[in-house]
Amino acid sequence: MTKRLLRALSGEAVWPPPVWLMRQAGRYLPEYRAVRAQAGDFISLCTTPPLAAEVTLQPLRRYGMDAAILFSDILMLPWALGQGLRFSEGEGPVLPPIRTAEGLKALDRNRLPDAIAPILETVRRVRAEVGDATLIGFAGAPFTVACYMVEGHGAKEFAAVRTLAYRDPELFGALIDLLTETTITYLAAQIEAGAETVMLFDSWAGVLPPSLFRAYVIAPAIRITAELRLRYPHVPVIGFPRMGGLLIGEYATQTGVQGLGLDTTVDPDLAAALVPLHVALQGNLDPLALDAGGKPMLDGAHTILNAMRGRPFIFNLGHGIIPSTSPEHVAELIRTVHAA
Amino acid sequence: MTKRLLRALSGEAVWPPPVWLMRQAGRYLPEYRAVRAQAGDFISLCTTPPLAAEVTLQPLRRYGMDAAILFSDILMLPWALGQGLRFSEGEGPVLPPIRTAEGLKALDRNRLPDAIAPILETVRRVRAEVGDATLIGFAGAPFTVACYMVEGHGAKEFAAVRTLAYRDPELFGALIDLLTETTITYLAAQIEAGAETVMLFDSWAGVLPPSLFRAYVIAPAIRITAELRLRYPHVPVIGFPRMGGLLIGEYATQTGVQGLGLDTTVDPDLAAALVPLHVALQGNLDPLALDAGGKPMLDGAHTILNAMRGRPFIFNLGHGIIPSTSPEHVAELIRTVHAA
Repeated sequence: MTKRLLRALSGEAVWPPPVWLMRQAGRYLPEYRAVRAQAGDFISLCTTPPLAAEVTLQPLRRYGMDAAILFSDILMLPWALGQGLRFSEGEGPVLPPIRTAEGLKALDRNRLPDAIAPILETVRRVRAEVGDATLIGFAGAPFTVACYMVEGHGAKEFAAVRTLAYRDPELFGALIDLLTETTITYLAAQIEAGAETVMLFDSWAGVLPPSLFRAYVIAPAIRITAELRLRYPHVPVIGFPRMGGLLIGEYATQTGVQGLGLDTTVDPDLAAALVPLHVALQGNLDPLALDAGGKPMLDGAHTILNAMRGRPFIFNLGHGIIPSTSPEHVAELIRTVHAA
Repeated sequence: MTKRLLRALSGEAVWPPPVWLMRQAGRYLPEYRAVRAQAGDFISLCTTPPLAAEVTLQPLRRYGMDAAILFSDILMLPWALGQGLRFSEGEGPVLPPIRTAEGLKALDRNRLPDAIAPILETVRRVRAEVGDATLIGFAGAPFTVACYMVEGHGAKEFAAVRTLAYRDPELFGALIDLLTETTITYLAAQIEAGAETVMLFDSWAGVLPPSLFRAYVIAPAIRITAELRLRYPHVPVIGFPRMGGLLIGEYATQTGVQGLGLDTTVDPDLAAALVPLHVALQGNLDPLALDAGGKPMLDGAHTILNAMRGRPFIFNLGHGIIPSTSPEHVAELIRTVHAA
């Protein structure tokens, strides 16, 4: 019997809808914090298969979600290509910024297979234990990964990356091409290792004006989805152009994704009207409503469920769980969705 | 003869379109930096009428824009209500955060008339010198002002303010009500002093899920616009729900604004299709395209001009000018728009 989440991604209006939550393996869980402390730094956790597999599976044991998402980070790709990466406490990821042809040239695709080997081992281990749940692989979308690679850290507007795109479209295009090709390699390897669907996180798509959105968000997603479709016709792709605003309809229809992640700001009724019925929608409760719990959480969940009933849909948040979230709120939310 | 910008706001497809730029009085101009150095701190500049009027008029002298916008800051309202405010170099605004009923109660509406007196004097001075250009008054929209008042500083997501909205809707609603009422008072006073149109900046509208967007962005804009309309039927209101995404159509049709500011991410063709023809659109070149200059700037400008020809439109940026912008790029942009 096909798994519930995969049925939704094949266009079936599964009800009650399958549910998982972005960052469901994370700091809000005491059992996660225990493993995290054991691992030392964050990159070690991502590259130590028994530990990464353990934290991937923790939320499923506790809550019985319909999917596990590989525990990793969107910046493991530039890390695997040889760009230095560290996660500093409170400050987030820090990388030596790439803004020249020399910087781009220093990235080494040949490092990729060895570097991602432990991540693929995690995928294999999780797949062996995931049972009826679906294992989701993922990567950052090229534009969002480029944001961090060019800026060197998180930012509000990612001005440096847009400036590079305007001033040196050739260099920026070459970076996006490299990331598009290596993302295909990386996601294909995750599928070979056992990922049953893959998600493309374009967390910063929303900082782009429409011309750049089409060039650097939609076009790479078309290439990635088409290539994966060709090689793995039965593995659906979920796209998540966060803060894509008015352009999410265009993204949904043009990229060929089977699922579209909706961020917190998207009105579910408008999205349901805008996105063709064969594309499953996924989202989009405000993580701060989950953190608040009670009425804001339940009202928010019911509004979404009411809008999505009768179409292929996967319940999720509109952004990742925040660390202060009570594990009890998560339990109540999952129960609510499964009782819909 | 009615001024060009006011004709556009009355629904006329003025061509070439009127143009002004958000933050056109600012650090990219050497003459601004000279006055800024003379003023000392930023709040002193905002509250010293000869200096504030001077920087308001500088870009018009240099470039001949179709509008001057009062030089001030959206946080002058909480400042006028007695919330402490300082601008720290590089860090932006800092306020003692308000998150309790006591904090809210400490705000004092009676301070408003005296506190805003120098700002109104600036309006009068500018109006006397503005000639054929239109003088735009402005305020922060209640939600965006509340963001800073509750968070205490700028932020990426303004989590504290959404958390307050979820956990204590009564307190947050009381803050929004207070801001809505005092914003009406403040904008009415600017109109009495000579502002010919007013703009409501909701810079952080885009962090809200739809239910909160309707409650705290659209509903206050309805109240403000209706009240001003009643008192000053000939003074148009421009709303700017930045990053409003899919909800800008609803904002445009429900709030009663005569103009709608489009942020950088909005596709001008989609906006033109979504917003009724009687609402003037305003925007939305990427400030980073202006900073880059040359082809990205000109291509971006022409795309917008082509989409907007034949409808009421005001050329602008999608966000404020950034300090590194070359004054020559601004000159070329204004020439380009006036030659459209």
